Amino acid sequence: MEHSPKALFFDVFGTLVDWRTSIARETESILKPLGHSLDWLEFADAWRGEYQPAMEEIRSGRLPFCRLDVLHRHNLERILPRFGVPRLSEETLRNLNLAWHRLDAWPDVPPGMAALKRKFWLAPVSNGNISLMVDLARRNTIPWDAILGSEIAGDFKPKPRVYLSACEAFGLAPGECMMVAAHSNDLAHAASNGLRTGHIARPNEHGPGMGETAPKVPVDVAASSLEDLARKLGA
Amino acid sequence: MEHSPKALFFDVFGTLVDWRTSIARETESILKPLGHSLDWLEFADAWRGEYQPAMEEIRSGRLPFCRLDVLHRHNLERILPRFGVPRLSEETLRNLNLAWHRLDAWPDVPPGMAALKRKFWLAPVSNGNISLMVDLARRNTIPWDAILGSEIAGDFKPKPRVYLSACEAFGLAPGECMMVAAHSNDLAHAASNGLRTGHIARPNEHGPGMGETAPKVPVDVAASSLEDLARKLGA
Repeated sequence: MEHSPKALFFDVFGTLVDWRTSIARETESILKPLGHSLDWLEFADAWRGEYQPAMEEIRSGRLPFCRLDVLHRHNLERILPRFGVPRLSEETLRNLNLAWHRLDAWPDVPPGMAALKRKFWLAPVSNGNISLMVDLARRNTIPWDAILGSEIAGDFKPKPRVYLSACEAFGLAPGECMMVAAHSNDLAHAASNGLRTGHIARPNEHGPGMGETAPKVPVDVAASSLEDLARKLGA
Repeated sequence: MEHSPKALFFDVFGTLVDWRTSIARETESILKPLGHSLDWLEFADAWRGEYQPAMEEIRSGRLPFCRLDVLHRHNLERILPRFGVPRLSEETLRNLNLAWHRLDAWPDVPPGMAALKRKFWLAPVSNGNISLMVDLARRNTIPWDAILGSEIAGDFKPKPRVYLSACEAFGLAPGECMMVAAHSNDLAHAASNGLRTGHIARPNEHGPGMGETAPKVPVDVAASSLEDLARKLGA
């Protein structure tokens, strides 16, 4: 790259946190004591499977913007009957929904972020809402400078507004910002809005061997971890 | 208080940072080498004096929302002729305007924030824009969980939307949030929107002996410093 970016924007679900095994663990810890026995990983996949269709209702303008916590709750109530789980108490539903606030980061994230913080402004540009991002950051020691992304933009990725509002909030041109993600689709949209791009390999996001090991689109940097990204960006 | 708040929201200019002596120092360091000799503290007071009238144009709906950086620049160009400073280069004007990004915190702020961080979610609810808040946080080691306030709300304090949008972003009821400020006016508006209130004495904000030593309105906690506030809130 000609010169270094000033800010790094991060996708969160899949790129920084292992949502699949975390959701499986959290749902098991809540539902098993209530006597339910499901395939917990399959349940996690089903819940996540409702994610894009739910956001598409908003991206398309058919529904007004709402926080991802609200969509997660809606999606949870859609899939529970499919797994034969009958009516749960409001308290249990609320606690289950907060499973998304208790996801664990991949092991390279805390040391990688600490290194990157010394050289770059850091913010999530995620479809998650602000309070969800704060819970994940506190749990996983992620030193964000600000929380940007969908709740600031009032829309969901990959709508251009989400990437561009993040650059504007930092007072930077898109070319001074790098989107970092384990998803080529996210990076392709960031690049088409003028941002630089960094790919992180997450080969096990959707299960063993079921994630992107390399970018499927041209990127500025491809890294095997955040620590590798820090090295490659001279941080 | 019946039970502890979950989040603390902070006013920044005056409450956390000493804008007056910092602006005087920064403007002197830029304008003196160019041959200008002003009363630098008076210049700081004049620049700050344009702050409320400029925001009032937006709060009243006469002008659309814009970031505080933009208002500061506008205000700077209004006052320079008053001090007999002729046309400056674009580079000098831009650098002068960034003086607001180089303000120093009062000495109790870094240790007080570190203590408060262990027990509370922390965010600025300031009229400053996000990039300005990030620069001040990095300079003064303030560990924000998120940057809330005017740029999120699209309006300026003391409009209710600014306080309420901050509570919403954290997914909290107003009564679970405490506004912390050295200005009774800010606290009165926060309280009227249902937030709790914490007053910090800043007796020298506007010069020696020219600041609030005690709240002029009823508050939940009155403290002499952030370290004192941390003690009083059991952090």
